[in-house]
Amino acid sequence: MKVTYQGETGAYSEMAVYKFFGNKVEPVPCKDFRDVFESVKNNQVSNGVIPIENSIEGSVNQNYDLFLTYDLKVCGEVAVKLAHVLITNPQTKFEDIKTVYSHPQALGQCRNYLEKHKWEIIPAYDTAGSVKIIKEKQLFNAAAIASEKAADLYNMNITARDIADNPSNYTRFLILSHEDTPPTGDDKTSIIFSAKHAPGTLYHALGEFSSRNINLTRIESRPTKTTAWQYNFYLDFEGHRTEKRCIEALQALEKYATFTKILGSYPRVI
Amino acid sequence: MKVTYQGETGAYSEMAVYKFFGNKVEPVPCKDFRDVFESVKNNQVSNGVIPIENSIEGSVNQNYDLFLTYDLKVCGEVAVKLAHVLITNPQTKFEDIKTVYSHPQALGQCRNYLEKHKWEIIPAYDTAGSVKIIKEKQLFNAAAIASEKAADLYNMNITARDIADNPSNYTRFLILSHEDTPPTGDDKTSIIFSAKHAPGTLYHALGEFSSRNINLTRIESRPTKTTAWQYNFYLDFEGHRTEKRCIEALQALEKYATFTKILGSYPRVI
Repeated sequence: MKVTYQGETGAYSEMAVYKFFGNKVEPVPCKDFRDVFESVKNNQVSNGVIPIENSIEGSVNQNYDLFLTYDLKVCGEVAVKLAHVLITNPQTKFEDIKTVYSHPQALGQCRNYLEKHKWEIIPAYDTAGSVKIIKEKQLFNAAAIASEKAADLYNMNITARDIADNPSNYTRFLILSHEDTPPTGDDKTSIIFSAKHAPGTLYHALGEFSSRNINLTRIESRPTKTTAWQYNFYLDFEGHRTEKRCIEALQALEKYATFTKILGSYPRVI
Repeated sequence: MKVTYQGETGAYSEMAVYKFFGNKVEPVPCKDFRDVFESVKNNQVSNGVIPIENSIEGSVNQNYDLFLTYDLKVCGEVAVKLAHVLITNPQTKFEDIKTVYSHPQALGQCRNYLEKHKWEIIPAYDTAGSVKIIKEKQLFNAAAIASEKAADLYNMNITARDIADNPSNYTRFLILSHEDTPPTGDDKTSIIFSAKHAPGTLYHALGEFSSRNINLTRIESRPTKTTAWQYNFYLDFEGHRTEKRCIEALQALEKYATFTKILGSYPRVI
């Protein structure tokens, strides 16, 4: 069973693949998020795993947006605890460090730590990938921020630990598929909708869930990209789309939405 | 009159400074957004200008978060139309380009264009700064994405125009100050609040605005960073915080919020 993820071997996304599918899965690295969606769409793999939000840095915007382009479903979610360490080549001392490489999300999660030092910050496409860069290019005045696993994998040194702004640092991943998951009794549903342009529309739309005791776990807004300052809303709520209360809420939502897209229902993990 | 902004001369933020304050202002470049907040806090300048959201890429997360750390007010807003061009050294031909430098937001706004080519993407701290990089380092196989003004300023070539995913590409900037602005009759107010952890809280909170015919222009959620999967909400709404309906709504909001922070009221521009 092949499952795609973005990044290099040792990336947090790869850990998410193992955590969700177990150790018999074959994780397949991709250069970017679009490749993950594309590989599932074209049936090159059974599933893809993408980060959707982090507990410090917030949403992974590009993945929210890709759900508009691709007609794929969400069949699951999984959270991975991130434990960033500062990684260098073995011959590099802490005081040699002049530049730090990592994925922009990881750099953002360690912003307070990084601001204490006068290092130059260089964004890279992946956490594990940044370890690979400083190893392959033999950058002895550089460090990378990634997981301990990535340090081990590339035989590199751990120069500092616990460098995130907050030790409670989790990323939530979604599992991409062609189908969502049947009800389990403890499910979540993800949808996108665009609210009609009238006062109070968002309030009334949320009321269709609240009045049916459907708890929202997440609301995110993203620009429509077609008209400036108009937004699509992404909702995650408790319940399965086949439950009566959810069917009714989703039908009632149509009154307030110019478009809706159900991304799928899946077992609730967080 | 000195006003700070993040980036290099020729940055879109600098255009926002001129658009809001006119041509007699002295724009002062800063390395990062925190420096802009810091310079206003310490009275080194009268105001700072920060990007808060883009009509294609969405929120500038770090600036949302910095409002929690700094007790500064918003006294105005301004929108700048972004017209990205692809910039190279004069001797570089289009087919020579192998890497493209720019700010991650600008790279995101041109994502579709960039994905058509096989260029390596290198994030930089600023759009105009990326032009400076390829000029100073004499990178003849590289291009930068920035404004036409930045190309002129650094005497560089424009190799392609209209490269954003959508021609309707605007960034909204907020003006930082120690005080907000008195009522003008057409105002907007920005607040942050953290909803109590109970079902339907966000719905009921929004209801306090809707029931008083206060139109929301923007809702954004950001992680609290203290507890995973809990969020602060950022609301922009029409009206001045000294108007009766707004005073009442903000008082009623307290029932549903564990904390609220009024960032300020200012003349509505968009």
